[in-house]
Amino acid sequence: MVKLVITRHGESQANRDNVYTGWSDVPLTAKGIKQAQMAAQRIKNLNIHFSDVHTSMLQRAITTANLICDEIDQSYLPIHKTWRLNERHYGALRGMNKDDSKQQFGVEQVAKWRRGYSEVPPQLSKRDHERRYDRLGVQIPLSESLKMTQERLLPYWNDVIAGQLIDGQNQLIVAHGSSLRALIKYLDQIPDDQINLVEVPNGQPIVYELDSKLNVIEKQILE
Amino acid sequence: MVKLVITRHGESQANRDNVYTGWSDVPLTAKGIKQAQMAAQRIKNLNIHFSDVHTSMLQRAITTANLICDEIDQSYLPIHKTWRLNERHYGALRGMNKDDSKQQFGVEQVAKWRRGYSEVPPQLSKRDHERRYDRLGVQIPLSESLKMTQERLLPYWNDVIAGQLIDGQNQLIVAHGSSLRALIKYLDQIPDDQINLVEVPNGQPIVYELDSKLNVIEKQILE
Repeated sequence: MVKLVITRHGESQANRDNVYTGWSDVPLTAKGIKQAQMAAQRIKNLNIHFSDVHTSMLQRAITTANLICDEIDQSYLPIHKTWRLNERHYGALRGMNKDDSKQQFGVEQVAKWRRGYSEVPPQLSKRDHERRYDRLGVQIPLSESLKMTQERLLPYWNDVIAGQLIDGQNQLIVAHGSSLRALIKYLDQIPDDQINLVEVPNGQPIVYELDSKLNVIEKQILE
Repeated sequence: MVKLVITRHGESQANRDNVYTGWSDVPLTAKGIKQAQMAAQRIKNLNIHFSDVHTSMLQRAITTANLICDEIDQSYLPIHKTWRLNERHYGALRGMNKDDSKQQFGVEQVAKWRRGYSEVPPQLSKRDHERRYDRLGVQIPLSESLKMTQERLLPYWNDVIAGQLIDGQNQLIVAHGSSLRALIKYLDQIPDDQINLVEVPNGQPIVYELDSKLNVIEKQILE
């Protein structure tokens, strides 16, 4: 039996301001740092030794991962930073207040974009360029549905994380609301029309126990 | 022209208490965190984009590396944690107050152990085991001279760091007083009998400019 712990970053400045973020790089708030430490304490109580930590290339997740590793006395763990675990790209909604978006596009449309599986938010007219991705040869998306997020996340799951779990090595993933919803949908085999019911709060890690075929044996939310 | 920045961690609890540490894992003091931030600010002023960060498997260096990456807005960089950059193993001196060691072994002998190249401090009678190294198949040394430290550090330099520099990728190394002395001895081609003159203070990064054969073109201490 092997353990996979997944956790969302603590509250970011954009969470606090109720603004769409996506690939924008915003720091944690003071509350977010406390949530990260609380998540860490909950993980510490499990007394799990991990072999690897996986996170995104965005500082709200990276800072949370660093804080957790410090707090559980495993700061020596390799922390792999991959764009494949980045938050969903919110396209032209980026930087917009979520309430304003409801006024502009209607509550129903916004709900589809935010909680649905296949709906793609309005695209940016021009692709961003950022050194951190350019040097990896990564094309930053113009916008992503949850499905698109899942499609670019799963290669990393399959190629990197799954193999480690099959080898019996416990893994920790520190990522984002939507990238974790995409992963949870895959692990829990949630139908497309029910993923809207899944939320991932800040600071409440989820522990999966998996068998050697990576079937879910048990799932527990630490709150 | 490519840049290599090397920096020692901030003050640790053992530095503060004037105690030999080596592979013991002690946190930074509040002063050490400030020194790390000061080092970060100095590195930030250089306006260098790094492709990789290399540090040890000891938290005083890892925390310093995390702080620097945050401060220079490059927290997305891969931070490679290797035992080959660990501090020199101080053997049976570990945990001993440095003044007490002078009383017990004499000033001259202690100076040879601390600042000389080939002198091996008294060995531990029994090899430590620690999960973080055991799973890598690393045998923790019983004691190390500076020469032994250099011998286990250079394979990482040659196999990982040197290639990146030759490819024109700026590199950042965050390590320890003695592991950095071993590296500086190699880079600056310092004779065995002069390495006792080299000190690496906390919080003062050193910037090397290297040519495509990794000859040192310029060296600057940021203080």
